[in-house]
Amino acid sequence: MSQEQPAPRPLIAVIGGSTATPDEETAAERIGQTLAHAGAVLVCGGRGGVMEAACRGAKSAGGLTIGILPGTTREQANPYVDIPIVTGMGEARNAIIVRSAQAVIAVGGSYGTLSEIALALAFGVPVIGLDTWQIRRDGHPVPPVAYATTPEEAVEQALAAARRVS
Amino acid sequence: MSQEQPAPRPLIAVIGGSTATPDEETAAERIGQTLAHAGAVLVCGGRGGVMEAACRGAKSAGGLTIGILPGTTREQANPYVDIPIVTGMGEARNAIIVRSAQAVIAVGGSYGTLSEIALALAFGVPVIGLDTWQIRRDGHPVPPVAYATTPEEAVEQALAAARRVS
Amino acid sequence: MSQEQPAPRPLIAVIGGSTATPDEETAAERIGQTLAHAGAVLVCGGRGGVMEAACRGAKSAGGLTIGILPGTTREQANPYVDIPIVTGMGEARNAIIVRSAQAVIAVGGSYGTLSEIALALAFGVPVIGLDTWQIRRDGHPVPPVAYATTPEEAVEQALAAARRVS
Amino acid sequence: MSQEQPAPRPLIAVIGGSTATPDEETAAERIGQTLAHAGAVLVCGGRGGVMEAACRGAKSAGGLTIGILPGTTREQANPYVDIPIVTGMGEARNAIIVRSAQAVIAVGGSYGTLSEIALALAFGVPVIGLDTWQIRRDGHPVPPVAYATTPEEAVEQALAAARRVS
Repeated sequence: MSQEQPAPRPLIAVIGGSTATPDEETAAERIGQTLAHAGAVLVCGGRGGVMEAACRGAKSAGGLTIGILPGTTREQANPYVDIPIVTGMGEARNAIIVRSAQAVIAVGGSYGTLSEIALALAFGVPVIGLDTWQIRRDGHPVPPVAYATTPEEAVEQALAAARRVS
Repeated sequence: MSQEQPAPRPLIAVIGGSTATPDEETAAERIGQTLAHAGAVLVCGGRGGVMEAACRGAKSAGGLTIGILPGTTREQANPYVDIPIVTGMGEARNAIIVRSAQAVIAVGGSYGTLSEIALALAFGVPVIGLDTWQIRRDGHPVPPVAYATTPEEAVEQALAAARRVS
Repeated sequence: MSQEQPAPRPLIAVIGGSTATPDEETAAERIGQTLAHAGAVLVCGGRGGVMEAACRGAKSAGGLTIGILPGTTREQANPYVDIPIVTGMGEARNAIIVRSAQAVIAVGGSYGTLSEIALALAFGVPVIGLDTWQIRRDGHPVPPVAYATTPEEAVEQALAAARRVS
Repeated sequence: MSQEQPAPRPLIAVIGGSTATPDEETAAERIGQTLAHAGAVLVCGGRGGVMEAACRGAKSAGGLTIGILPGTTREQANPYVDIPIVTGMGEARNAIIVRSAQAVIAVGGSYGTLSEIALALAFGVPVIGLDTWQIRRDGHPVPPVAYATTPEEAVEQALAAARRVS
């Protein structure tokens, strides 16, 4: 009762393609590393490409990594996932990734990533984009997505947004 | 054994906001009606706005309507839903709507609709847009979404796409 | 506006194994047929065994059948499913089957069926069992499951329970 | 490449009611504590009762706790959950809890717990029961559930089963 619980560490999602360009992987690895240095927990889809690079970066800095997997076995996780969550739900698991995060960093990505950005916006979870989808309506960019130009800036913006949300 | 099953009727999803402009509702109602006349089954999220208008149009033409609901009770369905499917999964049910359809028609819509467009593209389900999101990458529009200018054209394109898929 | 919507037809779930004994299939087919004669819509998991037999029975009496599929393609449905709902969620779709029904009839079945019985009880959906799991706590059978001895009795009890619920 | 990843720590689920008797809470707390001492990660539904007691026990021994929440906000987690996973899927999240675990310990519980036991058996995840549901078919208890008589015995059996599975 009298024991104070420490404030829980922020959970930040990194989303992006399971196949990625070398530049995207470099950025994602740096993002994972920077998040871990800041004490954040990394949550992602647990697969390859951007997800694996982000997890590898986080582990290189002693961070904790959560992989919300689409399939039915934990073997599907990349080797840098500490905690594989096995949903068996396919892409419907995208909603869980973004709902569980206090901010989302999107790196590149294909349609699955776009669905995660859209769900985050629908749920009110802040999204920071790094060389990712541009979303427009009536010719105008949608304001809730903030665009960063470097991995460090993306992490800084994500952590600031997470503090405002929680 | 010797009894031939008739070819199943195409399932076409109509997606869009649960609040909608009068123009969007008029278009959605006309889409529902045209789909029903063509013998298609309408699947949607089962709520108000574009979804309700599409169901109302389908029922006015004797069609069958399926509502894949986000909440936990069938009472949440609009009054023109014949078959309420109660998922209790919130927005994660968006994946089910588009996976179940052979083509998707998007009318206007907000972030939930954008997530459905993205999931449809991820699953390879054809998307026809009517005054909806523009999605760009590196400044270029994404080709898999076909844009229609009238409800009738949207239905025609959706049915043609559904025939190619199945 | 002034147009009265007719009362929606009751949705009754039939659950049971995807492989089944001949006796179970005979019972499930008779249940599907009796439900269709009574004007109920059949909802099930859309696969083989008990599910296919129930759908075949319903179609032989002109009924409407909904299959809530675990996988990612509509081709997975048995040939007597009119409306395949493609969840891509595996066994997590069991929650959707029972939530969507106003009463559930369980015929035989394995662990998946047991999970559906348990979820139905958790959601307050009445369950009628025909030669299926016995569930006990502290040595006593759990009362919410009513056990029937014939297909006709199971349907009668399910429809009566559905009327009380809605 | 040459860097060896350490073997991931076993994930063990503790399932049971969100309201619980004092005896059940005492047992669950002891289970959580014993799991943490053994280096296992605790996964649970993240709510009160048995889940909260198990998390409290794990935290008292320095363990890591994952809560797979049914609702749409992380605030729903009990105060001893380190990593709240926000599914927004209601009871359909039960499938994720048991799929993510290498063994499941059931303490008491109501229908939700029964559904988790059934899903674990369907997925081939070993289940250890402590004063929980008895499941019978044709009058015979179902063998895959092992019953323990003390918290320590339950943990020992769960860890042994997890080693056999992985």
